[in-house]
Amino acid sequence: MLGWMVGAPPPSDKLIRFEDGSYYHFPQFRWSFSHWRQFGPTMNVSRGEGPVRVLARAERTDLDAVTFVPLGGDHEMTWAESLAANYTDGIVVLHKGRIVYERYFGALTAGGPHIAFSATKSYFGTIAASLITEGKLDAGAAVASYIPELKDSGFGDATVAQVLDMTTALKFSESYADPSSDIAGYARAVGFFPRPSGYSGPTTDYQYLASIAKDGEHGPAFAYRSINTDVVGWLIARVTGEPLGETFAKRIWSRLGAEGDAYIQVDSAGTPIASGGLNARLRDMARFGEMLRLGGHYNDRQIVPAAVVADIRRGGSREAFAKAGYKMLPGWSYHNQWWISHDEDGAFMARGVHGQAIYINPKAETVIARFASFPMAANANLDPTSLPAYSAIAHFLMAHPR
Amino acid sequence: MLGWMVGAPPPSDKLIRFEDGSYYHFPQFRWSFSHWRQFGPTMNVSRGEGPVRVLARAERTDLDAVTFVPLGGDHEMTWAESLAANYTDGIVVLHKGRIVYERYFGALTAGGPHIAFSATKSYFGTIAASLITEGKLDAGAAVASYIPELKDSGFGDATVAQVLDMTTALKFSESYADPSSDIAGYARAVGFFPRPSGYSGPTTDYQYLASIAKDGEHGPAFAYRSINTDVVGWLIARVTGEPLGETFAKRIWSRLGAEGDAYIQVDSAGTPIASGGLNARLRDMARFGEMLRLGGHYNDRQIVPAAVVADIRRGGSREAFAKAGYKMLPGWSYHNQWWISHDEDGAFMARGVHGQAIYINPKAETVIARFASFPMAANANLDPTSLPAYSAIAHFLMAHPR
Repeated sequence: MLGWMVGAPPPSDKLIRFEDGSYYHFPQFRWSFSHWRQFGPTMNVSRGEGPVRVLARAERTDLDAVTFVPLGGDHEMTWAESLAANYTDGIVVLHKGRIVYERYFGALTAGGPHIAFSATKSYFGTIAASLITEGKLDAGAAVASYIPELKDSGFGDATVAQVLDMTTALKFSESYADPSSDIAGYARAVGFFPRPSGYSGPTTDYQYLASIAKDGEHGPAFAYRSINTDVVGWLIARVTGEPLGETFAKRIWSRLGAEGDAYIQVDSAGTPIASGGLNARLRDMARFGEMLRLGGHYNDRQIVPAAVVADIRRGGSREAFAKAGYKMLPGWSYHNQWWISHDEDGAFMARGVHGQAIYINPKAETVIARFASFPMAANANLDPTSLPAYSAIAHFLMAHPR
Repeated sequence: MLGWMVGAPPPSDKLIRFEDGSYYHFPQFRWSFSHWRQFGPTMNVSRGEGPVRVLARAERTDLDAVTFVPLGGDHEMTWAESLAANYTDGIVVLHKGRIVYERYFGALTAGGPHIAFSATKSYFGTIAASLITEGKLDAGAAVASYIPELKDSGFGDATVAQVLDMTTALKFSESYADPSSDIAGYARAVGFFPRPSGYSGPTTDYQYLASIAKDGEHGPAFAYRSINTDVVGWLIARVTGEPLGETFAKRIWSRLGAEGDAYIQVDSAGTPIASGGLNARLRDMARFGEMLRLGGHYNDRQIVPAAVVADIRRGGSREAFAKAGYKMLPGWSYHNQWWISHDEDGAFMARGVHGQAIYINPKAETVIARFASFPMAANANLDPTSLPAYSAIAHFLMAHPR
């Protein structure tokens, strides 16, 4: 991998640091994304003390040649070609729970974690949905009823459901290509970006959230804003009374039979960044997807209520989603921090910037987990060569089971 | 645990942060030591992909009442009393490889890591000794022959063996009670302590090491200086050509059948702090000790050459050690980053500040791993109630096997 961080010390042109921002530049971040914790404080998420839930293997070599036509394209591409085109760092395909395909590229290994970015959101959305099902969190209640600190912010009169479905109307722009976008201010507040000398802005996630103003009417339109998920995390922490990372470990991670501990980036006050701070091994991400595919039952236990999974699969408002204008995602919706395709297979996804994905195709009994380090921070650039690829693989596995 | 870091956000008097130094104050550090990664950058050490090496259980309740006389004392104390007296966060006792006793206190859980502080050193000493046995590192060569960057430092003409046995003569004082001690400057350089505003000192471990001057003659006297271990780490990285954390994972951690990944604190350039940055689960620390007890063979493989373990057990120069004047450790020696008791049982130890320990008693077939958060940063304060306690437990198990 181009020799990043090799040497004791690495030569200065191969050194990747937080302070100078090099950790978040391409190509350096092909290394950084697999070593995220080297750039700041994080929280451990324990795999628990139980045995590893072994994933059976039935690997096959015929998937590499599966072809598909990229969205908007006119030439076929093979699955193998798509992996390189997408800067894939690792990919695992499960069919009926067995590993049929697994590859690692770049700086990622099977035994190492990778940052999940916004695929993190789907984990916390699932936990919040479980709390709603258990009656511990009221989907129709206003955020301020749980978090008075947000009463005067744009979140105050939004409902829990609106935050979960990102139909809040907030003054917050999320354009990774624009350095003046609000997302950069957020990133500095939570410690994702280094702070300039003399910085006097918010130094914690919660401080930042309280500074966000309302901009319009909550409800009618989906608008992808990561800060909603930080409020989801805050809601979970508030109603459980537990540190968020412990809730995550207790409800999800320690029950999956994961191979490794996961970890979450935290801000300077120890608050986990629910919008995108999860780092985990790829096969463990696949285990989470498989658990969802199986209606919440995995590793010999019901990890998430079946009703929660069924509700996620039903999706959110397609009308509200359409207003956001995602050309690559026609007819999709967003619900409880999941992306729902509403396609004939009932596929739904966790998605993260730079190409992170958990793709769950119930009809094809297929789960695909992917980590990537696509140079540009927008999935619209890589959806054309990934979404139809996932679908093609799922259909191939359905047509050619073993 | 007094409610540290509970709440979303925690109330200000229960908030523990790096910036204000509260993470390293007692009683806050009873929490911090089990959540070290929340205070800075760290490196993952993978447990690998294999199954967990299950530790059989044969727990017994008769150990709590085992008595001993604290060093310098005149009253008996029970094992159970010693655990509280020592601010034990967790303790595991293995007899013939089976868990006969296991307790957690404070903020530690079986599934969570704790900082090992200087017990870290014994891991890297073991790796360096293995490299010597394999002919990849020459114990008699000067440090500067491997690390020209240290040629003009006090380390330059020290041999590899002198660094490993800490018989180097260096201008470096290590008194944790004295804020003007050199150890504080080291801690700021590597990122263990926060840096004051306007700080202009070294910002990496390697920069700091190069600044250390010689003070006397290498060889005749043992003097415990943590910076020697950072040079051990640098030597390992230099001769392997690999990142130090990967070497650690490859040679040790991924082969133990560990239950969890470990992690190591890193400096701002990603260099693992070999002197004290390891964080791991307690049972995994015990597995490492058990591997040493068994001559390097554990989990169905030879992890460390038997000759390396035999050499560690033979120890270093007791004459050199005596010059350091450890009243609690008469007749001991220090070799390859291990503390050797030379007692009738052949006991030897990894030791870390605030009470971290791996105690290996070959004759009694006993291994004790302990994490602690003793308020004062000097083992001399807790040796009186721990060293004779370990010995008493080992002798009791020998006399009353099950």
